[in-house]
Amino acid sequence: MINIAILGFGVVGGGVAELLSSNKKQTLLAGGEEINIKYILDLRDFPSSPFADKIVHNFDVILEDGGIDCIIEVMGGSHPAYEYTVAALKKGISVITSNKEVVANFGDEFIRLAKDNNASYRFEAAVGGGIPVISPMISCIAHNEMKEVRGILNGTTNYILTKMFSFGESFESALKDAQDRGYAERNPDADVLGTDAARKITILAALATGKLVDVNLVHTEGITGIRLQDVKCAEALGMKIKLVGRCVVEDNGAFVAVAPFMLTSDSSLYSVSGVYNAVEVDAVPLGNVMFYGQGAGAGATASAVVGDLMQIARSGVHTRAAVMEKDNDFLLPFSDFVSRSYVALDMCDRAVISEIFGNVMFISSEGECAFITDEMKEGDILARISSLADKGISLRSRIRLL
Amino acid sequence: MINIAILGFGVVGGGVAELLSSNKKQTLLAGGEEINIKYILDLRDFPSSPFADKIVHNFDVILEDGGIDCIIEVMGGSHPAYEYTVAALKKGISVITSNKEVVANFGDEFIRLAKDNNASYRFEAAVGGGIPVISPMISCIAHNEMKEVRGILNGTTNYILTKMFSFGESFESALKDAQDRGYAERNPDADVLGTDAARKITILAALATGKLVDVNLVHTEGITGIRLQDVKCAEALGMKIKLVGRCVVEDNGAFVAVAPFMLTSDSSLYSVSGVYNAVEVDAVPLGNVMFYGQGAGAGATASAVVGDLMQIARSGVHTRAAVMEKDNDFLLPFSDFVSRSYVALDMCDRAVISEIFGNVMFISSEGECAFITDEMKEGDILARISSLADKGISLRSRIRLL
Repeated sequence: MINIAILGFGVVGGGVAELLSSNKKQTLLAGGEEINIKYILDLRDFPSSPFADKIVHNFDVILEDGGIDCIIEVMGGSHPAYEYTVAALKKGISVITSNKEVVANFGDEFIRLAKDNNASYRFEAAVGGGIPVISPMISCIAHNEMKEVRGILNGTTNYILTKMFSFGESFESALKDAQDRGYAERNPDADVLGTDAARKITILAALATGKLVDVNLVHTEGITGIRLQDVKCAEALGMKIKLVGRCVVEDNGAFVAVAPFMLTSDSSLYSVSGVYNAVEVDAVPLGNVMFYGQGAGAGATASAVVGDLMQIARSGVHTRAAVMEKDNDFLLPFSDFVSRSYVALDMCDRAVISEIFGNVMFISSEGECAFITDEMKEGDILARISSLADKGISLRSRIRLL
Repeated sequence: MINIAILGFGVVGGGVAELLSSNKKQTLLAGGEEINIKYILDLRDFPSSPFADKIVHNFDVILEDGGIDCIIEVMGGSHPAYEYTVAALKKGISVITSNKEVVANFGDEFIRLAKDNNASYRFEAAVGGGIPVISPMISCIAHNEMKEVRGILNGTTNYILTKMFSFGESFESALKDAQDRGYAERNPDADVLGTDAARKITILAALATGKLVDVNLVHTEGITGIRLQDVKCAEALGMKIKLVGRCVVEDNGAFVAVAPFMLTSDSSLYSVSGVYNAVEVDAVPLGNVMFYGQGAGAGATASAVVGDLMQIARSGVHTRAAVMEKDNDFLLPFSDFVSRSYVALDMCDRAVISEIFGNVMFISSEGECAFITDEMKEGDILARISSLADKGISLRSRIRLL
C-alpha cells in the first residue's frame, strides 16, 4: 500500500482524488499497489465532500506522520510549494507536481534532493496537461541528438487565436469568450502575456538539453498585440498564427523563446486547435514526433499526476529521472535568432522598404504596407525597423514565420 | 557496461548499430551505462562494415557466451525469432524487438517468460516506428479506463492513399510510385491487404485491454478495393479515406479491426499524411491524446529499439512491463460493429435504395448510385446489400465512416 497526501484540494487535487476512487481497478493493475489517500491539505474545509475526513490544515501533520510515501503538490505558485517540496524530499518522501512555476524555477534542486534522499521527483502534469510528454522525453527518446522542441503549450491562448481565425473575432472579444467558458482566468495575464508557456518551454528545454535556464531570461512575447488584420493576412497566405514555445538547439547552446509564429499547413502544429496542446520534437535519428492532447482540465491533469504515481508505485526510484542543472550561459542571445518575419508598417512607398529590407514579398493588407522578409537575425531586423521609424514609418505588427 | 547482441543486420539492425556508435554521449547519459555490441547475427558477412568483426552466423555463440545482457531481435518473421527469443529469455537475457509479427503472435508468452526469469521483454519499435507509444501506454496512461485506441499504423498504405487524394492517382499508380521510392515492398501484400496494420492494432488492443487476441480473428480489410472514385466522393464530402486500425472497448469485450474509414477534418487522424503514423487514445479521465511521427525508417525504428535498451540499462526489470494474456473470447463479433457507411452501387432507382436502407443521404457519383447510411450494425448492412444484389443491383464499394 502506498500512502499519499495531496497538497491543495482545487480542480487538480479534486481530480486526482476522484480518479483514484473511480479507477481503483485500473490503478491497482497499473501500479501494482493499493493507493491510500491519507491526507488532503487545504486552507478550507469541505464538509460535504466524500474526502472531508482527509482534510488537514497543517503541513506538519503530513510531514511528521512518518507513513507517507508520496506527496502530490497541486497547490500552484512558488511558495510554500517550494518549502513543502524541499521538506518532503529531505525526508525521503517522493513528490509529484503539476506546478510548472515551481519546476521551472527549482526543478534542478528538487531532482538533486530526490536523488540524494532516495526519493522520486516527477512532474508530467506540468507540461501539456494529460499528454504523456515529459516521461517519453526522459525515458524513450533522450538518447537522440535533440535539434528542436517546440509546442503549443497554452490552451487559453490557442483557443483565443483559433476563435480569431475561425470566426474573425478581435482579440478582446475572443478573450471575453474564453473567460465566459472558464478557459481564461479573470486576470488572464499569465496566459496571454506568454508567462505560462515560457515556464513550460523552459522545462522542455531542460529535458532536451540538460540545462535549466532562468525563465526570466527566456524571450517571451504574448498574443495581446495580435490584430485581427494580422490573422487575416496570415489566412490569405494559407497560414495560421499560433503562440509557440521553441527551444532550438545549436552547437554552442540553445535559443529558448515564446512568441506568436505564423505556420504553414505543412507544420504539424497548424491543425492544433482550440484548447488542445501539442509538443513536437525534432531529433536525430528519430526524426519528427508529436504528442497531442488536452492541455488542461481536471481529468487530463489528474491522469498525468496519477501516471507519475503509478510509476513510483511500480518502480520507485528505479524509474528514469529527469536530469538537469542550472546554466544560463547555455541560453543563446535572442538577438542572434534567425527567422523570416511578417511585417506591417504605416502605408509608405514600397521603394523605401526595398531599400532597407532588400528583397521582400509584399502582401496586400488594407491601409498599411505589409510584407514577408527573407531570413535575418533578430538584431538585424530590429535595426532595420528602427531605421524606418527614423523616417517616420512606424511598425504596426511583426510576427515571425516558423 | 551492457553487452548486447543484435539479431539481423538489415535496415533496422544497421540503424541500431549506427545509432549506438554515433550517439555514444547521449546513450551514456540516458542509459547510465556504456553499451557494447558484442555480436551481430546474420547469415551474410559484411567485410567492409565497421561492424565486420562482430558478425557471427550461429545463434548458439551468443546464447552460450554467458556475458550477454540483452538481445535485440530485428530479424522479422515468426521463426526462428520465436525460438531465439524463448531461448534467450529462459537464460534471463532481456529481449528487445521491432518484430510486430512475433509480438502479435507470442507477446503474452514472452512477457510471462521474461517475468519468470527476471528479464525484460520490450517492443516499442513494433508499433509506430520511432514514435513513443507502447511505453507511454504502459507507463503513463494505463490507469485510465480505455474507451478506444485507433491509429494510422501503416505508412505505405497511408502514402498510397495520400497520393490518390492529393494527385488523383489510381491505386495501382500510387502503389507503383511507393514501390519506386522504396516505401512499399516488391510484394506489397502485407501492407496493402492490412496484415501489418492488423498485427499492430492487435498489440495496441492488448496494451489497452490486457487481452491478446488471435490476429487471424481480427477483421482485416486492406486498401486494394479503394477506387479513385471513392476518394473523390470522400473529398466532395470534405473527408479523406485512411486505413485505420481500431480497438473499441465495450463493457463485455472489444471490437478489433483494420479497415479503410472515411474521416472528417474534425478527426485528429485526418491530417496524418504520407508515410507518417499516428496512434490516438480515448480514455477516462484522460480524454483524447495522440502520438504522431515517422512510422518506419532505419533511424526512427532504431531510436525506438535503443529507447527500450536505455530503459533496461537504467532500470532493468524495475521498468514497467506490459501485461497481457491470450483471450479470444474478449473479441466481440464484428457483425455487431456499428457504423455509418458510404455505399456505391450500380446505377438504380433511388426509391429501391430508400426502401431497403431507409433514410440515407444520397451523394453524387458519376455512373453509379452512392449514399451515406445511418448507423447500423455490420450484419444488418450486409443483409441489406445482399437483398439489393438479389434485385440485380451490385455493390461497387463500401467504406465505413469513422
